[in-house]
Amino acid sequence: MNRLTVELLTPQAFAPFGDVIAPEAAEQSFSINAGSCTRFHDLAAVDCSHEDGRAGISLFRANARGLPLTVSMLERHPLGSQAFIPMSRAPYLVVVAESPDVCPRAFLACDGQGVSFRRGTWHHPLLALESISDFVVVDRIGPGDNCQEVTLATTWQIDTLPE
Amino acid sequence: MNRLTVELLTPQAFAPFGDVIAPEAAEQSFSINAGSCTRFHDLAAVDCSHEDGRAGISLFRANARGLPLTVSMLERHPLGSQAFIPMSRAPYLVVVAESPDVCPRAFLACDGQGVSFRRGTWHHPLLALESISDFVVVDRIGPGDNCQEVTLATTWQIDTLPE
Repeated sequence: MNRLTVELLTPQAFAPFGDVIAPEAAEQSFSINAGSCTRFHDLAAVDCSHEDGRAGISLFRANARGLPLTVSMLERHPLGSQAFIPMSRAPYLVVVAESPDVCPRAFLACDGQGVSFRRGTWHHPLLALESISDFVVVDRIGPGDNCQEVTLATTWQIDTLPE
Repeated sequence: MNRLTVELLTPQAFAPFGDVIAPEAAEQSFSINAGSCTRFHDLAAVDCSHEDGRAGISLFRANARGLPLTVSMLERHPLGSQAFIPMSRAPYLVVVAESPDVCPRAFLACDGQGVSFRRGTWHHPLLALESISDFVVVDRIGPGDNCQEVTLATTWQIDTLPE
């Protein structure tokens, strides 16, 4: 079994796979509502209208999984982007890959960071770490097969988190 | 000055204005990811593609306001829906109206409840109550004038929350 090193999640490191949804990722932010609110603007575009799809907002409630964790499958959504934003500050893992044939990359999302997977990005299902965790999910609602799963030829283990 | 009574937020009470984004509002929920996650499905449709618009995900960081609160203006977005989902469990107020000429309705959102305002719904900007609060916002990004504001002929005061 091979081991995966967990990286900290940054917009730059995650760019090949999609967007980080967090204040520090904003290219534009501005004061609105007579100064009572800051808008961190357009952190992730929603790309869900292919083949008669539309975007919908759902909630996911994920069980917590402790370390070590095994990554033996990935999935992707060929017809739409998919965004996850945690409803708490609890950390969770984001595992993505350029393809099922190469080493995946694992990122630790902290302090409320969300992610949006670009359409077709291979990723592991939600990996909450500490407790049952709720996430806001924005993804495609519509006809057609929008979920492909693959079992990996190589299994990967995550043992530790970055300090 | 007139007083507004604050109602508890329920999907039924909020139906004239949009959707409540919360597990209890789900018409469909199902187990996914090999049983590790529950999906509360499609709680709010995103309606942001009018006049060359698209949906985007932003974050709003709202200052807290204590009671009593005065409601003297409303706004609406004629070109798209707008959803707010809190990133904490802190309560906040949602003020909406069928029109600027009738008594608004105020709802207390609790325990992580989000809302999606239907396109064109008159509403007050975010009213966080306890602390600086972050919200996930899904709304329309695109050209055109998508914000109309109106000063109310009658001012409304919110003094107390429901028990």
